[in-house]
Amino acid sequence: MGLIDQAAIFTPAMGNSFGKLFRITTFGESHGAAIGVVIDGCPAGLEVDEVFIQAELDRRKPGQSKITTQRKEPDKFKILSGIFEGKSTGAPIALVIENEDQRSKDYRHIAESFRPSHADYTYEVKYGNRDYRGGGRSSARETAARVAAGAVAKMLLKRSGIEINAFVSQVGDIKSPLYTALDLSKTEDNMVRCPDAATAEKMIALIDEVRLQRDTIGGVVTGVVKNSPVGLGEPVFDKLHAALGHAMLGINAVKGFEYGSGFDGVMLRGSQHNDEFYKDGEKIRTKTNHSGGVQGGISNGEDIYFNVAFKPVATIMQDQQSVDKTGNEVTLSGKGRHDPCVVPRAVPIVEAMAALVMADFLLMAKTIKV
Amino acid sequence: MGLIDQAAIFTPAMGNSFGKLFRITTFGESHGAAIGVVIDGCPAGLEVDEVFIQAELDRRKPGQSKITTQRKEPDKFKILSGIFEGKSTGAPIALVIENEDQRSKDYRHIAESFRPSHADYTYEVKYGNRDYRGGGRSSARETAARVAAGAVAKMLLKRSGIEINAFVSQVGDIKSPLYTALDLSKTEDNMVRCPDAATAEKMIALIDEVRLQRDTIGGVVTGVVKNSPVGLGEPVFDKLHAALGHAMLGINAVKGFEYGSGFDGVMLRGSQHNDEFYKDGEKIRTKTNHSGGVQGGISNGEDIYFNVAFKPVATIMQDQQSVDKTGNEVTLSGKGRHDPCVVPRAVPIVEAMAALVMADFLLMAKTIKV
Amino acid sequence: MGLIDQAAIFTPAMGNSFGKLFRITTFGESHGAAIGVVIDGCPAGLEVDEVFIQAELDRRKPGQSKITTQRKEPDKFKILSGIFEGKSTGAPIALVIENEDQRSKDYRHIAESFRPSHADYTYEVKYGNRDYRGGGRSSARETAARVAAGAVAKMLLKRSGIEINAFVSQVGDIKSPLYTALDLSKTEDNMVRCPDAATAEKMIALIDEVRLQRDTIGGVVTGVVKNSPVGLGEPVFDKLHAALGHAMLGINAVKGFEYGSGFDGVMLRGSQHNDEFYKDGEKIRTKTNHSGGVQGGISNGEDIYFNVAFKPVATIMQDQQSVDKTGNEVTLSGKGRHDPCVVPRAVPIVEAMAALVMADFLLMAKTIKV
Amino acid sequence: MGLIDQAAIFTPAMGNSFGKLFRITTFGESHGAAIGVVIDGCPAGLEVDEVFIQAELDRRKPGQSKITTQRKEPDKFKILSGIFEGKSTGAPIALVIENEDQRSKDYRHIAESFRPSHADYTYEVKYGNRDYRGGGRSSARETAARVAAGAVAKMLLKRSGIEINAFVSQVGDIKSPLYTALDLSKTEDNMVRCPDAATAEKMIALIDEVRLQRDTIGGVVTGVVKNSPVGLGEPVFDKLHAALGHAMLGINAVKGFEYGSGFDGVMLRGSQHNDEFYKDGEKIRTKTNHSGGVQGGISNGEDIYFNVAFKPVATIMQDQQSVDKTGNEVTLSGKGRHDPCVVPRAVPIVEAMAALVMADFLLMAKTIKV
Repeated sequence: MGLIDQAAIFTPAMGNSFGKLFRITTFGESHGAAIGVVIDGCPAGLEVDEVFIQAELDRRKPGQSKITTQRKEPDKFKILSGIFEGKSTGAPIALVIENEDQRSKDYRHIAESFRPSHADYTYEVKYGNRDYRGGGRSSARETAARVAAGAVAKMLLKRSGIEINAFVSQVGDIKSPLYTALDLSKTEDNMVRCPDAATAEKMIALIDEVRLQRDTIGGVVTGVVKNSPVGLGEPVFDKLHAALGHAMLGINAVKGFEYGSGFDGVMLRGSQHNDEFYKDGEKIRTKTNHSGGVQGGISNGEDIYFNVAFKPVATIMQDQQSVDKTGNEVTLSGKGRHDPCVVPRAVPIVEAMAALVMADFLLMAKTIKV
Repeated sequence: MGLIDQAAIFTPAMGNSFGKLFRITTFGESHGAAIGVVIDGCPAGLEVDEVFIQAELDRRKPGQSKITTQRKEPDKFKILSGIFEGKSTGAPIALVIENEDQRSKDYRHIAESFRPSHADYTYEVKYGNRDYRGGGRSSARETAARVAAGAVAKMLLKRSGIEINAFVSQVGDIKSPLYTALDLSKTEDNMVRCPDAATAEKMIALIDEVRLQRDTIGGVVTGVVKNSPVGLGEPVFDKLHAALGHAMLGINAVKGFEYGSGFDGVMLRGSQHNDEFYKDGEKIRTKTNHSGGVQGGISNGEDIYFNVAFKPVATIMQDQQSVDKTGNEVTLSGKGRHDPCVVPRAVPIVEAMAALVMADFLLMAKTIKV
Repeated sequence: MGLIDQAAIFTPAMGNSFGKLFRITTFGESHGAAIGVVIDGCPAGLEVDEVFIQAELDRRKPGQSKITTQRKEPDKFKILSGIFEGKSTGAPIALVIENEDQRSKDYRHIAESFRPSHADYTYEVKYGNRDYRGGGRSSARETAARVAAGAVAKMLLKRSGIEINAFVSQVGDIKSPLYTALDLSKTEDNMVRCPDAATAEKMIALIDEVRLQRDTIGGVVTGVVKNSPVGLGEPVFDKLHAALGHAMLGINAVKGFEYGSGFDGVMLRGSQHNDEFYKDGEKIRTKTNHSGGVQGGISNGEDIYFNVAFKPVATIMQDQQSVDKTGNEVTLSGKGRHDPCVVPRAVPIVEAMAALVMADFLLMAKTIKV
Repeated sequence: MGLIDQAAIFTPAMGNSFGKLFRITTFGESHGAAIGVVIDGCPAGLEVDEVFIQAELDRRKPGQSKITTQRKEPDKFKILSGIFEGKSTGAPIALVIENEDQRSKDYRHIAESFRPSHADYTYEVKYGNRDYRGGGRSSARETAARVAAGAVAKMLLKRSGIEINAFVSQVGDIKSPLYTALDLSKTEDNMVRCPDAATAEKMIALIDEVRLQRDTIGGVVTGVVKNSPVGLGEPVFDKLHAALGHAMLGINAVKGFEYGSGFDGVMLRGSQHNDEFYKDGEKIRTKTNHSGGVQGGISNGEDIYFNVAFKPVATIMQDQQSVDKTGNEVTLSGKGRHDPCVVPRAVPIVEAMAALVMADFLLMAKTIKV
């Protein structure tokens, strides 16, 4: 086979777990029997609202609107363990979503060739033995498991008053106003999940245009965590924003992460950027929030906000040049039904990962026992 | 005391370790007896060049040039364990750097008040008992330990041909050309560590101007990893770029991380952004590299490149408003000798963290035994 | 409720994962929907023999013989992910076993009272909210998941020639000869799983006698690992035998672990106990093996052998005194069908845990890539 | 070199850390510059008594009495970080003990040959490059670092009322009465650290006799943890006793661990072994304590007690047969000053490891924040 004879017959794999105390492990391939997640470390006694978990999954599922893929996957989840009489028991919570359609369609083009900017080539070299059907483990279908786990984390956070929000703040070159000027309760009012109606309209038009061109486009999702207690985050390597960055960069198609003033902040002077403290009744607050709610890696009680950049979806309905496993040059044609822009469906994923990080740090800082 | 009576008497702390197989744990405060690092997981038999470690530390140390702080710290390291007859033994490698000047200067302004955009307030609430001298544990002095460990990681990577480079690509609004247009061997030719001489000159002038204004300015460090084997990185949560992002966001003053096309990539169409494969002799390569050398979280053999945004240094030589521990509003005046811009000294830190990530993934993918 | 008002409403739980590189996470309760396991870190390309996994589960399942519980549970497993065309892909392998009979029988006696020497009381205090049906998470039913995962580990070890054996070496005061005098291929020849036919007969008679007395009895399982390469095990805290001990002590009802000369070795002199080296052809071997195949925490190539002590099963068919949740003294009567002696069914569990440890250390020492 | 040409040029090493939340990492070799420990996760605000730490180290140090080695090592420790104004800050606590005598004596016999029942051979094969001076990393000198860290853990536990005790319960075939019949405050009254004066006398006589025979003898240390809160320990793999077992089996020369009824318990019937509950005022207690204070892996509030078996010290003052690195058979003669029996000096080590386990589980169960 030559070109990839460095291919592993035998390579260990890891990296399917996330979190230290509130810890999830996901499993499952796009076209295997099921995908799922095991949550280890969820405190006992938490009321688990199954309707809410399903609602979160529905926000991520395909086929929601004309600007998402038209594939139909019901994404109904089932609880296997860890919940008894409506509450968590402290035992691992296992949630599974059976894959409806496991029929092996014609995946020969993925099996033998490497789609540009997909994980086909790198998985082939790393693992040798690859479940290529629908992308296998590298498929974004895996993120459904994260959304289910994130829903549980959100319920935990809600008890402490912590709110997790995300919305689409950019599609291509169309940008929404800053989050502070928006009413985040309106995020679900339109199919692109931008709370500013006027911007949303333009975004939808752009995605539609790109779709008709059989092309795709990138975007930015902004996350906002409100009412975080002061003191979450660990110093040095596990700063709160470093964990958030790790979480976001682990989402398929993400190319960048910034929080607070972010990349634009590098152009400010210290005298402009510093957030001065003042006394607000009995609280210590900052007048501005370039810090993005995190100082020295630890939450300071202000809003935590961050941007997550998503590249344009790699699957396009156009011919592309590539090579196959034997090194022959081939032309690949896009097939199937895919998202022209991933950000509307990425909103609940960003929220889920943020919720998992916050739940983990909340337990790390304070594991409440009466 | 009221305002921070939520202060911890008793809060666990973690987060001082980084890496899974090539794992470091740092310790030490700015004005304690010493700072240091324990490296656990360095393979046995590695030749350790102490001169190189010291040279790396010298690139980070204060007082190197007129655009860095004028503090003098020799930063001489000492090996306590793990090296025998010039080679690693497989036992933990402990390196320490004694702090020269531990005299307690007048730190009352830090002890009692909260400097804007520093970690004073969040540490106070989180830990209650805080070593405030010179920022204590939150001081960037801790990064010297990372640079020492990163030097060991670089020696390990060198055996596999992997090269780690970083340089200053932006100061304020002055940007260098893309890395592909630069000769990275020229990074050390000037004090700002930008390999483009013309841009470097402008950056130095800007930093100097800002310094005279008793102010500070931010910047961007670009990292480039060359000759990575195909197959490094773990799928799902521990994607190679997610680990790199975690590493970079854990460096003091970092506000953002992007790799490959990054935030600008969101404006491209899929047809522009996709990296088509072609056959280059016996290798499979991509024509473009918007992927930044990573596809599906796994290295594809192309250059891995990324940008790291640093905010302007929080310590400015100007009066600022703040509050003290009892909630009184106070005016703080900047004191001491500080960097007007952190990025020149951040270059070796970015390289060190990148080296630690690559060494960890290299061992994860292939722990070589004859 | 008084007596246990220290009960947690909110307590984090962990500890459902085992291993570092070959890492399993189990989930499921005795009477929940299903139990299962996720294996993360199994190398790609391993041929997975499903018939073998089922055979291992059958060795552990209830109702095998007259000396085990008469409950019937088919324990059929299903693969949800990680295997493609008969081989591991490097993605997490999820295996589930659905619970056949989830009908809530009358568990009021467990729900309200604390069975002596069970986990009822400690779980009640720790978690507050407890799935009491059939012991819930504390049920030994959970070990089926370990046996399934252990079967996969065994297949991995087999490629390196490593063999895992266990057998019953003691029931009550009846002891078998040392393993070196036994033919371990005869372990499955009788229902008590002692390879010495004469001893087995006595053990079976004793268990039968105890069963008729509506009582239970303890025993010892001996584990033997053959053909381990030299060099497995990590120094200091994660010595090979320390990991084996951790693994065995995590099995329900285990009270002790010893390896090599064990507790009896303390009575020897150093001159008797030391294992002298000699040259055996091209190999270095030891004349005796009091070390149990491990020196300084690292395998030396000799047989690794160890004993695991199991207490008598806590569920007896007799009246016992206890207290209920409100602190009233109560009399509990044994109900249902339980094992009079746990060791015959513990043999595959001991083997599974040993296999998981060896697989983990094998990957830690050498993650083979061609 | 032939016989061990499977020797690693390049093998990763790990296993120098212990604990999850209260986590220590030790470093250092017998004859390197220093040994030490970094404690990450010690809560902030703990008063650290340096005199107590030194006193604990003195209990372990060589040369205390005629029945220990006559080597003189002062074992004075130094704090490098993490303590400020007498209290922990939440930052990593680094403690080092400089090695007094690093002169390279004549270690050629260790460098070239393999001492029976030492770690010479296994380290040589695993690491290739080995610091052989005085056993290097495999030396029990490393345990001084654990004792220092254990002293900090004890101070943390003391705040919760938890007491850690250990004593010598067996030397050769001489056994003390059960701990329940002893006054543990008398452990330090004699040089063998057995609180029963009559037994202690016999033990000392036996050790002395063995020493004169230029031989060594094994023993048992019993550990007792009093006043543990109910609810410590994690279910399934990280049962409290499994963590204790892991900790004890990681101590040099340990061959076995049992808790509660231990190996003897296998001979009891369930009706004899079960610990019936009763009401003791406002507490729920058990009438007997065969469970050893742990049920289902979780502490039940009764005394936690366990036995740790130590083999006879491998270094004897007699000639022994062995082989050298080139495979030649050689005769080795014992040299230097060594302990005839390790258990008296092992008492503080057992206590230290028990304290580290309990501190870790205490934080896992309840990380107190007002």
